[in-house]
Amino acid sequence: MMVKAGKPTDAVIDELLPLLDKGDVLIDGGNTNFHDTMARNARLDKSGINFIGMGGSGGELGALQGPSLMPGGQKEAYDLVEPILKQIAAKAPADGEPCVTYIGPNGAGHYVKMVHNGIEYGDEELIDESYNILRNLAGYSVDELADIYKDWNKGELDSYLIEITADILTHKDDLGDDKSKPIVDMILDRGANKGTGKWSSQDALEIGIDQSVITEAVYARFISMFKKDRVAASKVLPKPEGKVDFDKKEIVEKVREALYFGKVMSYAQGFDQLKAASDQYEWNIKLGEMAKIWRAGCIIRARFLQNITDAYDKNPALQNLLLDPYFTDIAKKYQESARDVVALATKAGVPVPSLAAAVSYYDSYRSEVLPANLLQAQRDYFGAHTYERVDRPGSFHYTWYEEQ
Amino acid sequence: MMVKAGKPTDAVIDELLPLLDKGDVLIDGGNTNFHDTMARNARLDKSGINFIGMGGSGGELGALQGPSLMPGGQKEAYDLVEPILKQIAAKAPADGEPCVTYIGPNGAGHYVKMVHNGIEYGDEELIDESYNILRNLAGYSVDELADIYKDWNKGELDSYLIEITADILTHKDDLGDDKSKPIVDMILDRGANKGTGKWSSQDALEIGIDQSVITEAVYARFISMFKKDRVAASKVLPKPEGKVDFDKKEIVEKVREALYFGKVMSYAQGFDQLKAASDQYEWNIKLGEMAKIWRAGCIIRARFLQNITDAYDKNPALQNLLLDPYFTDIAKKYQESARDVVALATKAGVPVPSLAAAVSYYDSYRSEVLPANLLQAQRDYFGAHTYERVDRPGSFHYTWYEEQ
Repeated sequence: MMVKAGKPTDAVIDELLPLLDKGDVLIDGGNTNFHDTMARNARLDKSGINFIGMGGSGGELGALQGPSLMPGGQKEAYDLVEPILKQIAAKAPADGEPCVTYIGPNGAGHYVKMVHNGIEYGDEELIDESYNILRNLAGYSVDELADIYKDWNKGELDSYLIEITADILTHKDDLGDDKSKPIVDMILDRGANKGTGKWSSQDALEIGIDQSVITEAVYARFISMFKKDRVAASKVLPKPEGKVDFDKKEIVEKVREALYFGKVMSYAQGFDQLKAASDQYEWNIKLGEMAKIWRAGCIIRARFLQNITDAYDKNPALQNLLLDPYFTDIAKKYQESARDVVALATKAGVPVPSLAAAVSYYDSYRSEVLPANLLQAQRDYFGAHTYERVDRPGSFHYTWYEEQ
Repeated sequence: MMVKAGKPTDAVIDELLPLLDKGDVLIDGGNTNFHDTMARNARLDKSGINFIGMGGSGGELGALQGPSLMPGGQKEAYDLVEPILKQIAAKAPADGEPCVTYIGPNGAGHYVKMVHNGIEYGDEELIDESYNILRNLAGYSVDELADIYKDWNKGELDSYLIEITADILTHKDDLGDDKSKPIVDMILDRGANKGTGKWSSQDALEIGIDQSVITEAVYARFISMFKKDRVAASKVLPKPEGKVDFDKKEIVEKVREALYFGKVMSYAQGFDQLKAASDQYEWNIKLGEMAKIWRAGCIIRARFLQNITDAYDKNPALQNLLLDPYFTDIAKKYQESARDVVALATKAGVPVPSLAAAVSYYDSYRSEVLPANLLQAQRDYFGAHTYERVDRPGSFHYTWYEEQ
């Protein structure tokens, strides 16, 4: 089934059901919410029918040349269709391996696809923030930016999204009066969304995982949609007055390093979410395999997914991507640039919601002590919610004031 | 009914149902998810029984001395119980008005309570970030901080949460060996949560509203819970190396202004969420009334809620709190401090997720042009999602590459 997610999927299932026999395999390749896939898998399983919820990514070209596939459902059903899926899937350039694997039971496939899309939102927002800084703060032209991204694509940022960003910036308008204008300047700055990034943030909130970089990317799309309000607000709410100081040449490399730093934080959060979801929903997702099947075919394909694959190959129980030596080293080398760029953009009035979230995440995660002790005191004060102590186990309530 | 939200509420309803007559009023005063309240209101309405879902805030003292009450349901049912609720509710110090009003149909009351709690999360996180900066970056002692917050509570930050923060910092340990230690230093920095802040962010994502300050506060609680991981990470992931420069005396006022700036952004987002929810769920919520009934009894009670009340009194159709002259002026006066504090904390390695989100929100909202034009180009490139143009209406697709 490749139909619009939601009611159309159920309608097609109901039509197919009378034609299916025990042991048959039904595959939903739509962009389905994993909750729906879990429910459908359970419902069909009762009549002995296997149901695979399969996420896929690759866009228009992926559909033609092979996508990355994320199938979840009964393992024995996956084994039956694996040869076909391996034929369809994109092949990783490094080793020719097909970009498909068994993800886990029931909703696991659509969950992984959902987080893939969340990560895609994060990647796009981080790139867009870098573009905004270089163009509107540092003053680079669209042509110069095309070269900058082309250059970045030769290094550790090598990825499909950087590649198409460079290409986009070389294209001129095809419809307006002045065909010498960059097409990007003719496009309205209202960023639409189809919901899977939102789902990913909603479930991070549900399972208790900090997924701030992606969520800020979702919010950035939301606020971009209020174009009329923003235009009105821009006439009332002032910019910062102070001048900012930077070196126009040096800022390019700093922004590149900040972008890579932000990307690493975003993936650390995304893989943390996959890990937590796998535990809570009992899916036994192999994190390294996820990076492996994203190496080709899908929108977030990138050279550095090989580094993630390697990290989990070395240590399948890796607690957080940032604790792998390669990524620790990236954080170490690039944190200063990330901090400089956030500070500069903040002072200059250029919004950097996802990049700032990335730095705050890094600083929160590496903080032995956070101010949540004060929070617990506040909660115990107004609501008697109790607190834990540093010197002994248990829950305690402090007598903050005399009862009146 | 004052029972634990969820299944216990349904169990009590089922027990009461046979005893209820047409036109009776059942009130759920629990911390119920508004979706459940909507479903229960609809279900009971069929048998002619009125169902009020009533949010309440005030903590332990509110329960004794009068809370802020947020009842939603049938208007005629509210009219029946209004005299009782007005007796129970806290009274606003400014004019003695009881902190209760009819919020709107079905789930409106519990929705407003949910956003109240989200705002409370934001307030607490912003205070905790200010504490972290002043204590761990600027080097103020707990005693000095108690005086600083006491002082802040005399001005425009005057609020219950600042008041109790000052009080908390004066209290010494009651259990350990050294009773001269501040109690706050004996409290473990794991910030718990009971879910309503999370709901508030999940619904902001659902209805398409940027609620970044509150969501970052929810995430800050999440990451604080991973104490063991943070301690381990603190030994591997390095701090920034550079030294930061600031004036120890001046930073106090800068942090105060940044805190107020952050608070204004958080409330602008919260009220924007209420407005959008009221439109989408057809509740006709009067935004000014919400600020009015939060002036006493509840955890977020604060002097500046009067400014919000005034803003909506003057202009009930106000598009965004930031467009009211009082709040525009605050943004204007304090943006530099907010930027300085975010830049300083970012360079020093002190996490400021909510404050940084506040500045990015301000800059996004007042941006005539955001880089979402590049985003739309990317989406049209890989997925043929089409784009809008700046020079004409409609949806367009660009031929980015030749089909192969």
